[in-house]
Amino acid sequence: MTAAGVTAGAELQARIDAVRADVAALHGELVRYGLVVWTGGNVSGRVPGSDLFVIKPSGVSYDDLAPDNMILCDLDGAVVPGTPGSDRSPSSDTAAHAYVYRNMPEVGGVVHTHSDYAVAWAARGEEIPCVITAMADEFGGPIPVGPFAIIGDDSIGRGIVDTLRGHRSRAVLMQNHGPFTIGATAKDAVKAAVMCEDVARTVHLARQAGELIPLPQDAIDALYSRYQNVYGQSTDDRR
Amino acid sequence: MTAAGVTAGAELQARIDAVRADVAALHGELVRYGLVVWTGGNVSGRVPGSDLFVIKPSGVSYDDLAPDNMILCDLDGAVVPGTPGSDRSPSSDTAAHAYVYRNMPEVGGVVHTHSDYAVAWAARGEEIPCVITAMADEFGGPIPVGPFAIIGDDSIGRGIVDTLRGHRSRAVLMQNHGPFTIGATAKDAVKAAVMCEDVARTVHLARQAGELIPLPQDAIDALYSRYQNVYGQSTDDRR
Amino acid sequence: MTAAGVTAGAELQARIDAVRADVAALHGELVRYGLVVWTGGNVSGRVPGSDLFVIKPSGVSYDDLAPDNMILCDLDGAVVPGTPGSDRSPSSDTAAHAYVYRNMPEVGGVVHTHSDYAVAWAARGEEIPCVITAMADEFGGPIPVGPFAIIGDDSIGRGIVDTLRGHRSRAVLMQNHGPFTIGATAKDAVKAAVMCEDVARTVHLARQAGELIPLPQDAIDALYSRYQNVYGQSTDDRR
Amino acid sequence: MTAAGVTAGAELQARIDAVRADVAALHGELVRYGLVVWTGGNVSGRVPGSDLFVIKPSGVSYDDLAPDNMILCDLDGAVVPGTPGSDRSPSSDTAAHAYVYRNMPEVGGVVHTHSDYAVAWAARGEEIPCVITAMADEFGGPIPVGPFAIIGDDSIGRGIVDTLRGHRSRAVLMQNHGPFTIGATAKDAVKAAVMCEDVARTVHLARQAGELIPLPQDAIDALYSRYQNVYGQSTDDRR
Repeated sequence: MTAAGVTAGAELQARIDAVRADVAALHGELVRYGLVVWTGGNVSGRVPGSDLFVIKPSGVSYDDLAPDNMILCDLDGAVVPGTPGSDRSPSSDTAAHAYVYRNMPEVGGVVHTHSDYAVAWAARGEEIPCVITAMADEFGGPIPVGPFAIIGDDSIGRGIVDTLRGHRSRAVLMQNHGPFTIGATAKDAVKAAVMCEDVARTVHLARQAGELIPLPQDAIDALYSRYQNVYGQSTDDRR
Repeated sequence: MTAAGVTAGAELQARIDAVRADVAALHGELVRYGLVVWTGGNVSGRVPGSDLFVIKPSGVSYDDLAPDNMILCDLDGAVVPGTPGSDRSPSSDTAAHAYVYRNMPEVGGVVHTHSDYAVAWAARGEEIPCVITAMADEFGGPIPVGPFAIIGDDSIGRGIVDTLRGHRSRAVLMQNHGPFTIGATAKDAVKAAVMCEDVARTVHLARQAGELIPLPQDAIDALYSRYQNVYGQSTDDRR
Repeated sequence: MTAAGVTAGAELQARIDAVRADVAALHGELVRYGLVVWTGGNVSGRVPGSDLFVIKPSGVSYDDLAPDNMILCDLDGAVVPGTPGSDRSPSSDTAAHAYVYRNMPEVGGVVHTHSDYAVAWAARGEEIPCVITAMADEFGGPIPVGPFAIIGDDSIGRGIVDTLRGHRSRAVLMQNHGPFTIGATAKDAVKAAVMCEDVARTVHLARQAGELIPLPQDAIDALYSRYQNVYGQSTDDRR
Repeated sequence: MTAAGVTAGAELQARIDAVRADVAALHGELVRYGLVVWTGGNVSGRVPGSDLFVIKPSGVSYDDLAPDNMILCDLDGAVVPGTPGSDRSPSSDTAAHAYVYRNMPEVGGVVHTHSDYAVAWAARGEEIPCVITAMADEFGGPIPVGPFAIIGDDSIGRGIVDTLRGHRSRAVLMQNHGPFTIGATAKDAVKAAVMCEDVARTVHLARQAGELIPLPQDAIDALYSRYQNVYGQSTDDRR
């Protein structure tokens, strides 16, 4: 190997290690915000500048997640042999994550949960209407419903991509299943999962008690535009 | 006693100690997931290869549970005298647990709680319909209702066994009372209790806001079969 | 003072100190079970064998409660001067607690909260029907509603006593106000407050989704009788 | 600078430092009571005897808030250059806070959250009726709705001030947006935010299950008057 090759390899390894640490830690946010029970839910993050992503192992307790047991996969969802954690099976949703990374190059993170209010909308196959300003900020309109699809082929991944491509929303409610969220980074996708459940809950509560007041489309557009460009300390905070 | 007898005794004692530790620790999961208040709820675990099980003492705070105050019982529900914790009364649901162990040899753990959403379905005597994929994975169909029965004889245990024998679901909602769950191990039964409350809550929320979309039976079958055989790192994780 | 008088004084002081410690610690259970926000809610305990009780100071953060800032009162609700904490005002519900202690000598503890589900029933002036076995165990029937009364005279205390005297329930929902619970000890009254909110929530959820199945009166009677006499390790656990 | 000027400057600095510490710590109460997710929500406090206030930076995690990264602003909402934290952007709601401080000199603290039940009322543009005594104590009547307004000019601040000026309530539900609360101090405004969500939740639950019993106006008046004047250990506790 040339010296340049050695340096490139070390740099890639550093990026992989950073994503492992990020993805392991971000699972803690799913617990903190009550989005998951037992071993349900998963976060993944793309390794920048590579055809690799890092995802949670299948069926492992949230208490036991650590950078070294996160699993490195290629964009077909195959575990990279000989890497830390590769002796375990990756999340059973790995194929769906891989499909998203293959087909949406702008996506750097994917999250899936069974958070209760979002799943409740999904069990009715009903999109969440955009009636609060926080939802206009974050999602720029309604959170859409994706098709019914079950594990076993590309149909979940395809349903996510077909629904979210060209859509402002970073969250989709897969029918009878639950939310998948995407983001520029794994952290951004986790934020979308947290906000998705928060708006699912708030709009559920609001509608249970009477008629909702619609938000004017121009207000939605203005809020979304401002939030994507001005909020926070940097682009990373904005989303 | 022969040398073989001494060895067998030591091995049995080690198995008993392991179940004591497991059962004591697993009560913490009931607290973590908000399934119990005050001293309500109980977990038991069968001692493998014996006619014994370990259960929580009656009316003792969750803060005070430890391996040494768990209570060892035989399959008639009688406390084994002279063992740690035997100076206290076992859970008032001990007879129901014992009935399950006597009549379902495949069961290694039993859990009972008064978790709120599950009890709400039980107070209406209504089974939880299987409308979300996580429920198909875990329970393979609806969570059934068992008969109304009160403490004092075998009627609770009989109601659990009559309802769950031959059923995919590891959870039953005893009418006007609450959920009992079973599992291959105590941990598996605790997982079933956690998932039972989670789906009871999600389906309650979903239905409060409109019509549910049914899951096709073949999708339920496919999800249940995959989850029992593929999910997780081992058989233990799968359930 | 005679030697006997000195001994009697020391014994009384020890009982007061024990109740101070108990009452201060039991406020933590109100926080743990989410029954209170900010400085709302209060626990008091009678000093056994005396005409005294210990109660929380008014408007003090739960983080700052300690045995030495609990306030000692006589049965008219007057602060005992010169005792620890006597420089502060006692809970603004002190008069109601005092009225209960004066008129119900069997009561050793009183608790008041604004726990959300119990207050919701109180805002409709509706008793909680006894449709779950845990409620039959604990309260022996419905949780009744007391009259509308506001702070300023004996009317809250009188409403509590008039409603609970001769009633199985240790909890009353004061109309448009919230629950007051009584018990043999302060701990017992706190347990009643915890269970009151738990059943208020469960029965609310159950009824939102359809018709409740009534519990037969003879089952209620049998459950209540068993629970008061058999459950737990001792009389103290039972209640 | 004269000696008197030096002393005055030191005293002002001490007041600024005290407000920085207060405002940073009070954000923890928003987390404790579940009023905020991710980086949403903000608390500010006026520096007594000055035309300055302290507010949270925009889009920063609650885990990372500390006195030194709070941001000092003038009453036009401009960051005071060269002060700690001034390298960051202040909360995107800073203009609304500034408008309140400019126009309501009696206000010493402002809080904004997207707490779920309060937002649910706001999404329907419906005021919260005063049907429980705790609400009469704290708000002296209903919690009103303010106009729909979006970020970008003075319209949110003006809506808050126009709604709350001369009103007993320290909370306003801005339509389709969420609650803003004011107080004599930042702590008082935080208390109002906590109580606003608590009553929003309780009254929501109450009304979902049937007819509410109105509180008589004279009872509301008596409760509000007593609570503002008698409750707690001092004026600070009362509110």
